[in-house]
Amino acid sequence: MMVLPEMPPGFRLARFEKDGALFWGVLSEDGSRLHPLSGPGHGSFSLLDVRLHPPVTPGKIIAVGLNYRAHGNEMGKPLPEEPLLFMKATSALLPPNGEIRLPRMSRRVDFEGEIALVMGKKASGISPEEVPLFVYGITCANDVTARDLQKKDVQYTRAKSFDTFCPLGPVILTGALPDDRRLRTEVNGVVRQDARASDMIFDPLTLVSFISQVMTLEPGDVILTGTPSGVGPLSPMDRVSVSLEGVGSLVNVVGADPHLSPNFTRE
Amino acid sequence: MMVLPEMPPGFRLARFEKDGALFWGVLSEDGSRLHPLSGPGHGSFSLLDVRLHPPVTPGKIIAVGLNYRAHGNEMGKPLPEEPLLFMKATSALLPPNGEIRLPRMSRRVDFEGEIALVMGKKASGISPEEVPLFVYGITCANDVTARDLQKKDVQYTRAKSFDTFCPLGPVILTGALPDDRRLRTEVNGVVRQDARASDMIFDPLTLVSFISQVMTLEPGDVILTGTPSGVGPLSPMDRVSVSLEGVGSLVNVVGADPHLSPNFTRE
Repeated sequence: MMVLPEMPPGFRLARFEKDGALFWGVLSEDGSRLHPLSGPGHGSFSLLDVRLHPPVTPGKIIAVGLNYRAHGNEMGKPLPEEPLLFMKATSALLPPNGEIRLPRMSRRVDFEGEIALVMGKKASGISPEEVPLFVYGITCANDVTARDLQKKDVQYTRAKSFDTFCPLGPVILTGALPDDRRLRTEVNGVVRQDARASDMIFDPLTLVSFISQVMTLEPGDVILTGTPSGVGPLSPMDRVSVSLEGVGSLVNVVGADPHLSPNFTRE
Repeated sequence: MMVLPEMPPGFRLARFEKDGALFWGVLSEDGSRLHPLSGPGHGSFSLLDVRLHPPVTPGKIIAVGLNYRAHGNEMGKPLPEEPLLFMKATSALLPPNGEIRLPRMSRRVDFEGEIALVMGKKASGISPEEVPLFVYGITCANDVTARDLQKKDVQYTRAKSFDTFCPLGPVILTGALPDDRRLRTEVNGVVRQDARASDMIFDPLTLVSFISQVMTLEPGDVILTGTPSGVGPLSPMDRVSVSLEGVGSLVNVVGADPHLSPNFTRE
């Protein structure tokens, strides 16, 4: 269970590494510097001098399938009557600027830009109205998916849980909900997904309430709220960016070597 | 990531609570007493005087579907060409003797007795031959499943991740693999599942190697190796027991109140 710092709403909170130690930091208004909440002295650091981590280390990552009408259509799937849950392995987490590695097992790996909710309090059986009291904030995620294996397995687990398949960040906007924020995904500077949070079929309050009827949500748990239409394949050296209004952009590059298993060290 | 104690092979390791503190303990030959590895004095405790916890707190629980031929047939499913992976939420963990709660959302909850592997070392891209060096030991699990929701969702996540749906224990047999051990599930004293580990379609070494090609396995991660034929529904007050040769029996009761959501506190 992650212990998140007590923060007023409206701050952009990052987790970063400096000289081998991990710190929480607040991003400056202009997005160029990080002010550590505690730790090394009183100064601030340029983003160029630190290494960003995912802004939270979730105990579990719950995701929702087919939660935008146009994406359901492009996948040729009927829209679900209830939220369709799946999970991504926490070992798939990738920091901002981290390299997405294309696994040897797949011939087609897609980006899926999403809005992520970060839980702030333990939640079990809560109503939609109560949800804002339990959510810590929002951030960007990329629900990277091996599309060929998703179809083959039917179960999404393998397709969505390869190492590096869950970029998250760069910061958590504290005390915020998706509201009607704009979500955009670009690949190599070309806009590929462009939607608003209000396009979701099941809104974030309904989603969190529903999930909390199934399983106890713990502080730091992350909920991916689904991807809009426009998903497509990633190629080696691609630069993919997921941007959420008021939060920032989660940028990742795809590794140059195609179809190597993640961390594969033998052959 | 769980830190597991260094142990020689062949010990039955439990995790237990005594006077509000958590300890590791070794089960006596006759299965009646626990010898703590460290902590309260030098004595041992009767099993009656402690509260067992799941013997490990996994960072993730990976499970394998349709890994026994006769179970694939009873589910009316074709056998998979590759191991079929899914995940259970870690919030579903339940200790030995803990109460399985039937959720309001489901009208049919089944037991599924299984052999569980506990990882001892970080593993990524390992070969089947290397797997024994990375496995800490084996224990029993019950992959409790809301069968109606499994069919409805197609994705297994919701059906298998309700709170209390992953009983685990009672002990880890250290340094052991499933080999050809007998696995039996009884409900109210009647044998419902009876199989041998060698009946698995994908053997444990192949499973762990395969999963490690997809995602990095960490110490304490748990792998459920699939259930044999004979699965069936649980009713309020049922007593379900999963027994693994050389390990022991994982006993759980089903809560008296039918179809209450886990931890549901509002209406």
